[in-house]
Amino acid sequence: MDILIVLANPNTTSFNHAIAHHAQKELEANGHTVIFHDLYEESFAPILPGPEIQRNASLPKIISQHCHEARNADGIIIVHPNWWGMPPAILTGWVDRIMRPGEAYSFVEGDNGEGVPVGLLKANKAIVFNTSNTFEDREREIFGDPLERIWKDCIFDLCGVTDTYRQTFGVIVTSTQEERQAWLAEVEKKVGEIFPADA
Amino acid sequence: MDILIVLANPNTTSFNHAIAHHAQKELEANGHTVIFHDLYEESFAPILPGPEIQRNASLPKIISQHCHEARNADGIIIVHPNWWGMPPAILTGWVDRIMRPGEAYSFVEGDNGEGVPVGLLKANKAIVFNTSNTFEDREREIFGDPLERIWKDCIFDLCGVTDTYRQTFGVIVTSTQEERQAWLAEVEKKVGEIFPADA
Repeated sequence: MDILIVLANPNTTSFNHAIAHHAQKELEANGHTVIFHDLYEESFAPILPGPEIQRNASLPKIISQHCHEARNADGIIIVHPNWWGMPPAILTGWVDRIMRPGEAYSFVEGDNGEGVPVGLLKANKAIVFNTSNTFEDREREIFGDPLERIWKDCIFDLCGVTDTYRQTFGVIVTSTQEERQAWLAEVEKKVGEIFPADA
Repeated sequence: MDILIVLANPNTTSFNHAIAHHAQKELEANGHTVIFHDLYEESFAPILPGPEIQRNASLPKIISQHCHEARNADGIIIVHPNWWGMPPAILTGWVDRIMRPGEAYSFVEGDNGEGVPVGLLKANKAIVFNTSNTFEDREREIFGDPLERIWKDCIFDLCGVTDTYRQTFGVIVTSTQEERQAWLAEVEKKVGEIFPADA
């Protein structure tokens, strides 16, 4: 399987990086091909320009390439910290530019743009790994954990990825080395379960 | 009163622009001073760099200026389309960079970063105007309307703005001229109620 990993964290020594690299290692051990994008490292340009909104817009080569990879991946893994109930802007913008009509979803013939689109992504499984410095019950009760609906319902389900597993690790800032090692073992286990060898 | 308007839409002829300009007109008619930021027009740089995460980071002048304006505004109005249950990346990044510790919120002495911060923004009222091409009941039932919690709970309440009014206009793509005129009248009315003359 071709699995796309998209990582968004400015610090190369972040726990997000550790998660993404452990996921990559597990996938490769299972015989999968990994397409790895560290958006900060690649200086991904996140601002969707007006002319790109057109369904048949001419796209920069880098954007076409991302669209092609996202559309054809057999699975997708997203890794990022929870910032204000959202991904970092560099990843919000990856969604804005890459989850395009005609690539990630399509409106039904005759629809004017307000209707219910059809998902076009090949993947039917995705994983979202988040990190947080907020306790889990506070995130859910006080903040409503918007990332849960954003990734599962607003993005992946709409684009045809019906089976999204999401897990948040935290509190990161006060975690011990042992906790982080245990979390990375959980990452490997879950990635192995969802994208096993011989899948 | 000093009221900050932050607008994020790539198209200068967008309905978001019309909303923001009608809000500005109403505020000025009521004797308020408006600080107006059209983030696309200003090419705001939305990517929070790693070193800026530090609480006492040295900041680019443009970022310090935004922080100063946001912190000292008596009211804040945000205008943007609903993209994937989130703001456009340029505005997500404005939040990432401007809602800083020490400017927009502060951790309590002795806290290691996982605790409950204290809001520092002077404003106690905010308005969020969104536009959408999704029917309201579908947005709420299928997508969970993440922007509701993002703006009210994750961002403004945490930063000390306890009274946030949010309204979504739509479906934009199929709306008539008459509907849009009525919506702009609603914008003016609501802005006038929340930020009246002699406030």
